[in-house]
Amino acid sequence: MPLHGLSLIAGALGRHSDNTFRAVDPASNAKLDPEFHEATELEANQAIHLAAGAAAAYRARSGADRAKFLEAIATEIEALGDALLKRAHEETRLPLPRLTSERGRTCAQLRLFAAVAREGSWVDARIDPALPDRQPQPRPDLRRMLIPVGPVVVFGSSNFPLAFSVAGGDTASALAAGCPVVVKAHRAHPGTAELVGGAIVRAAAACGLPPGVFSLIHGGGATVGIAMVKHPETAAVGFTGSQAAGRALMEAAAARPHPIPVFAEMSSLNPLFVLPGALKERGAAIASGLFASFTLGVGQFCTKPGLVFAVRGADTDAFAEKLAEAVRHAPCAIMLTAGIREAFHSNRDAITAIDGVSVLAASQPVEDIEDLGQAARPIVATTTARNFLANPELATEAFGPFTLLVTADNPAELVACAAALEGQLTATVHGTNAELAAARPLLSALETIAGRVVLNGFPTGVEVCPAMNHGGPFPATSDVRFTSVGTAAILRFARPVCYQGFDDSLLPEALKHANPLGLLRLVDGKPTRDKA
Amino acid sequence: MPLHGLSLIAGALGRHSDNTFRAVDPASNAKLDPEFHEATELEANQAIHLAAGAAAAYRARSGADRAKFLEAIATEIEALGDALLKRAHEETRLPLPRLTSERGRTCAQLRLFAAVAREGSWVDARIDPALPDRQPQPRPDLRRMLIPVGPVVVFGSSNFPLAFSVAGGDTASALAAGCPVVVKAHRAHPGTAELVGGAIVRAAAACGLPPGVFSLIHGGGATVGIAMVKHPETAAVGFTGSQAAGRALMEAAAARPHPIPVFAEMSSLNPLFVLPGALKERGAAIASGLFASFTLGVGQFCTKPGLVFAVRGADTDAFAEKLAEAVRHAPCAIMLTAGIREAFHSNRDAITAIDGVSVLAASQPVEDIEDLGQAARPIVATTTARNFLANPELATEAFGPFTLLVTADNPAELVACAAALEGQLTATVHGTNAELAAARPLLSALETIAGRVVLNGFPTGVEVCPAMNHGGPFPATSDVRFTSVGTAAILRFARPVCYQGFDDSLLPEALKHANPLGLLRLVDGKPTRDKA
Repeated sequence: MPLHGLSLIAGALGRHSDNTFRAVDPASNAKLDPEFHEATELEANQAIHLAAGAAAAYRARSGADRAKFLEAIATEIEALGDALLKRAHEETRLPLPRLTSERGRTCAQLRLFAAVAREGSWVDARIDPALPDRQPQPRPDLRRMLIPVGPVVVFGSSNFPLAFSVAGGDTASALAAGCPVVVKAHRAHPGTAELVGGAIVRAAAACGLPPGVFSLIHGGGATVGIAMVKHPETAAVGFTGSQAAGRALMEAAAARPHPIPVFAEMSSLNPLFVLPGALKERGAAIASGLFASFTLGVGQFCTKPGLVFAVRGADTDAFAEKLAEAVRHAPCAIMLTAGIREAFHSNRDAITAIDGVSVLAASQPVEDIEDLGQAARPIVATTTARNFLANPELATEAFGPFTLLVTADNPAELVACAAALEGQLTATVHGTNAELAAARPLLSALETIAGRVVLNGFPTGVEVCPAMNHGGPFPATSDVRFTSVGTAAILRFARPVCYQGFDDSLLPEALKHANPLGLLRLVDGKPTRDKA
Repeated sequence: MPLHGLSLIAGALGRHSDNTFRAVDPASNAKLDPEFHEATELEANQAIHLAAGAAAAYRARSGADRAKFLEAIATEIEALGDALLKRAHEETRLPLPRLTSERGRTCAQLRLFAAVAREGSWVDARIDPALPDRQPQPRPDLRRMLIPVGPVVVFGSSNFPLAFSVAGGDTASALAAGCPVVVKAHRAHPGTAELVGGAIVRAAAACGLPPGVFSLIHGGGATVGIAMVKHPETAAVGFTGSQAAGRALMEAAAARPHPIPVFAEMSSLNPLFVLPGALKERGAAIASGLFASFTLGVGQFCTKPGLVFAVRGADTDAFAEKLAEAVRHAPCAIMLTAGIREAFHSNRDAITAIDGVSVLAASQPVEDIEDLGQAARPIVATTTARNFLANPELATEAFGPFTLLVTADNPAELVACAAALEGQLTATVHGTNAELAAARPLLSALETIAGRVVLNGFPTGVEVCPAMNHGGPFPATSDVRFTSVGTAAILRFARPVCYQGFDDSLLPEALKHANPLGLLRLVDGKPTRDKA
């Protein structure tokens, strides 16, 4: 079935527009068919208004119904078959095996949130039954649970065209929470977006849901996006992208007459500290692992290690040489978009132009690829910890296959570097058992700046599970209290409501005396699945 | 022991200052001794810097240690005896029995958060153990828990000089979470603040905590307060007060280079809907209850019902007359400050000046009290639902003993009024069982605008317990996802961190394999107290 190039507004096709654009094959810069029609602000507003109109009906659906919807989306995505992978490959040039596994992750994520919604205890039900005889005052019956916040606007990322785009983690967690979703499609993969959007529309129809529960907007960049954040019926925003764009959304949301939360996952350098004993014991293996991690997906992972800290010495020299050797022989690879490649080169050049920074190694340029498409070559640079501490610009994210090796005079300087870092999604330490046991100050500094601390591993590869935290202090994210990956991501789109003095017949199922959903609830402060 | 009038900065007395002020007895407008010395911005910054310096040591303390600290604060407050009640009475003219019970609530709150910290499961530990043999990729060991966010700045309220001030709910929940606290004292009760602040300082010393864990700043209004919010080491803000002040803090926090969360509890009209059957059945009792609720504490409760909706008819007329009768015979009473009284009168006058609004009844003015102190008289006005829907200014909060009775043509108009309301802390419905069962649209509208929905009761009287939610959509609060009363308030001051690949010896106690703290944890997605 050919692509239509239109927005999907509450189950209906959007209008044709004079403002059109095409996807670009980043390998050749060729424009791909068809033309995509930018939605007007009016259409975007209409989508949000219809989402608000669907909110009460969707909220009233049971967790089991929401689960069926999420599972139906996964099934519909799988039913798109190779056509989806082929289009995503043409739009991103991410390798087919990667896209196949990303599709698997996307569907697994949808099914994981389905399981969370079906089990239902995530609503954190708390019950303090009435104490009519208490002195001096009786206690009324108080029952509290989380309910959905309302319509959520999702801005998908370019680097995960499936797992963090139209039916990605933000959409899955918002729908699981009971919120309608309006997705602003990423312009880098509009065809992929249309295919996945269509899958969601079909799933909603099959589940008998009001069509306003999902819309997909092809928009003309910032204007329509900001309008969607400012719409009075928008209740929350999920975003994955650059710090500048995320901050703009945060500011728009904060300046609304009624401010709303924005969950923006923005930028992270993912510092990696290699302690001397680990370097001596397995420096070569760490260098190989680091190389694989920082070049994975052409360095376009939000968890890419972009800073590596080690104490100067012979083992570090050997480690650096091993890393340089891998980089020299690395192939060029195609980045997702011209804009990303341009930003990568600009940030890379700005960092390597700073006094005291030298390029350790770069892979050979392949002129014909660089000319024709968005190819970039892996590169590693180096500087001293003293220089790093004196130049905050060295802690700029160069989103792409670049990492900076920072060499310290001694282990204490490593801690100083850690303490100087801004908020990060992850921080990693490699050390022997004895070193790590003695590294409390470093570990303590890292847990205050990062959302996830990794020992003797690499930060790329974000497991989707209850214990994952993909978050961190600003500027890694806009709200350090929440994760965008893993089951806890659902908590972003819910709010507590307390029901006081309700007859059992009027209570939501989750709070009824008989506990018909079998939830784990906090009754008089004690967790139980008993009646209450 | 006489009051010294100085700030308390990490256990030491602040400096004397040329800028001084005195507390005012609101019954006589007399100035009370001693002079209080305003802290400079430098001192406030120093307090926050010392809090940041104490953060790592305090964070490292066990939940049991934090519990002992909170319990010691409660004991120290009780040890202040009548001197505390006497000073609080002089500064607020709240009746001694009310202050005695508020002290009881304050200490009970501290002990409740102590119990939460000691039990420890609030950290929401989630463990996904390693799956080294999983295909295609092994799973690393992932363990996630909540840790404290860092130094919290607390702005106490004027209307709860004990329970929501220096050692009130914000301070108790932040300390329980493991965050140092810097309190900006409210200028309406600086002596009470000094006494309670001293109790916290003594408790910290007795528990061997770093003195930076608590400071108390007497500040010169907005300037020092905004500086405290902007300080780079401040991690979060708790505030209870007006919408204008709360919004100013929200904007200052959002405009920081690194934005931080502000938990502001600001304004609420607490609409109360009385359905026809309930009016017929027990209109007089509801009128009495409503009168008691809206004049409680001279109407200076954030949960005061300031809007009452009923369908026009003979029963409503009788209800209105009963309410008016109670108001006519109500005594004048003294408000907390000249500023609050002035704002009350100004808002009251603005509302009653609107076309279509008439005063139903007011208590008789008592000239000598009105002249000498901050006395105000209870008043009830009335208007039609049509007028209410046409004039958004009618939904202005008049903080004080005022309520507006809005009469509708029919029950559908009640739902329209509910849907037109902004965010509220509470919403209340009185109805017969049959009426409530048929009132789904009204209840559904109310749960989307309010943090707590009360049936056949009154919203004043906020139980401090796990199931309480004292929050709501803006402008009731700045962040609908959190409560400021009840045990869930601790979640405002914590953030998740995931520990990946940690040897058991390096993990926090809460996440160790043996579960030495006996916490309820989510292991592989299942709640358990087993080892993992």
